[in-house]
Amino acid sequence: MGPGAKAKAADLQNAYQLGQLIAQRGWVLLTGGRNMGVMNAASHGAKATNGLTIGILPTDDPNSISEAVDIAIISDMGNARNNINVLSSDVVIACGMGAGTASEIALALKGNKKVILLNDNEQSKLFFKDVLPQNIYIVDNPGEAIKTAEEILALHHIA
Amino acid sequence: MGPGAKAKAADLQNAYQLGQLIAQRGWVLLTGGRNMGVMNAASHGAKATNGLTIGILPTDDPNSISEAVDIAIISDMGNARNNINVLSSDVVIACGMGAGTASEIALALKGNKKVILLNDNEQSKLFFKDVLPQNIYIVDNPGEAIKTAEEILALHHIA
Amino acid sequence: MGPGAKAKAADLQNAYQLGQLIAQRGWVLLTGGRNMGVMNAASHGAKATNGLTIGILPTDDPNSISEAVDIAIISDMGNARNNINVLSSDVVIACGMGAGTASEIALALKGNKKVILLNDNEQSKLFFKDVLPQNIYIVDNPGEAIKTAEEILALHHIA
Amino acid sequence: MGPGAKAKAADLQNAYQLGQLIAQRGWVLLTGGRNMGVMNAASHGAKATNGLTIGILPTDDPNSISEAVDIAIISDMGNARNNINVLSSDVVIACGMGAGTASEIALALKGNKKVILLNDNEQSKLFFKDVLPQNIYIVDNPGEAIKTAEEILALHHIA
Repeated sequence: MGPGAKAKAADLQNAYQLGQLIAQRGWVLLTGGRNMGVMNAASHGAKATNGLTIGILPTDDPNSISEAVDIAIISDMGNARNNINVLSSDVVIACGMGAGTASEIALALKGNKKVILLNDNEQSKLFFKDVLPQNIYIVDNPGEAIKTAEEILALHHIA
Repeated sequence: MGPGAKAKAADLQNAYQLGQLIAQRGWVLLTGGRNMGVMNAASHGAKATNGLTIGILPTDDPNSISEAVDIAIISDMGNARNNINVLSSDVVIACGMGAGTASEIALALKGNKKVILLNDNEQSKLFFKDVLPQNIYIVDNPGEAIKTAEEILALHHIA
Repeated sequence: MGPGAKAKAADLQNAYQLGQLIAQRGWVLLTGGRNMGVMNAASHGAKATNGLTIGILPTDDPNSISEAVDIAIISDMGNARNNINVLSSDVVIACGMGAGTASEIALALKGNKKVILLNDNEQSKLFFKDVLPQNIYIVDNPGEAIKTAEEILALHHIA
Repeated sequence: MGPGAKAKAADLQNAYQLGQLIAQRGWVLLTGGRNMGVMNAASHGAKATNGLTIGILPTDDPNSISEAVDIAIISDMGNARNNINVLSSDVVIACGMGAGTASEIALALKGNKKVILLNDNEQSKLFFKDVLPQNIYIVDNPGEAIKTAEEILALHHIA
């Protein structure tokens, strides 16, 4: 999960690497599916490594879908689809920050999902750590994010 | 908007007063509709002052509805209903803090709504002020929240 | 519930009368909220008789809202909002027929709601009567629809 | 798409065959994802032929997911998820009939999707053919359903 139009260059680089690492482990990548920002970069990274990519789209506009998404789920429910994104994920990695990303992190915590934060926004780390400390993991780079995800999956026996 | 089961005593007092003040102005109160926490307290405050109260419920469980809700909208879509709550509001007042409340604030900002924060969680103020500064208003008490709401409505010509 | 752009003249007349009769009983009218077709006509009928009108809108376009809707709930979830319409209603009256109306009737039956059919589409009556006979009531005019609604509410002790 | 708990034996046989035929063509099977009825039978048929199966679940109950679903999308929005099912499908095949299935057919027609009906409910055929004739295809067996789907996909240049 991460920003669309307002993603920073570092977020896009991290997202692309996350997509690669996720695909290398044989995991399925689930994103918001649009052809911009973190969701697009992560999907392209996963496809470059022959991964399977799912996108949960907010609208039914076919032109909004990333070409790197294999399976497009058309929710047509705007940002309410953010709740589906996080409930359908075994682990949530939030790459970058913005209003939409913040809503996904908060909805993930509300749904008792584990969330890994990869960004340079210190306020976001302090805030979400305060909301539900035991569900928040703070990392510095994509490799650390994936290692943390592996530990969470092993600990919680998620397939 | 505000916490359900985990609302603090101060949040409930503020919510009750907000409900009273909203009803006194002839405004319609819209909450998450459940019979607990901030949504319940605000609805009771509004009814004590003969206001009209709407509740957007997450489930179709009739026992979950606050008795102070006049009109129950049954979304049956869990926390995705938080997006409906904020999109249907002219101004969002967030009273207290938690994962669900954070998701409503973030979804409100994503939908370009003005959000008034009334809580004692300093991290939340720093964080949301950072996400979209021009849409966040920080207040210290219910009276100030309503005064701020009046100014926002006047400035933006919202009926 | 009923067609928008494709409503027939008879549907609009029936809808306006239904709105009037609903308001006269002090009931709240809930529709799909748009400024066209059956939802618009019913809302205008209710307002002509000083009723309270709720509209559950499919999009966040402010220009799509009927001016006869007092309280606009912005779902921004397209036709998935049809499920909210029926779950939030004590009794569903389907006035006219079309794909959207058929989805509301079917979702109402799935949610075990009582549905009153007022239209001249014989296939729709045969079909929905076949799907769940005990929940379908067929009427010939608005007055009969309201009388049937009163009987359903009395029998099932719905407030 | 098709009934869950109330599916008939013939529906389950047809669904299993549909799953097999869909997987044999290299298509992705999308169903409602639950471990009962037509969605379960179709998913098992597809997995028996090494297909890829997606399920859009109505609740977040992990025990409700068919073991033949590869990728579970957790909507947690009840029957409103039926709209996502049809909007995310290139072609909708309705196997069997019931209130939920009727809602999916109606929502598919509302979204201008092509719908293939495979059932022995004559009223449903007459009714949906009346609602939007150019989008309804009536078939007698799974093989004919797949042949019709191929023709629709070819005609409309759907990948």
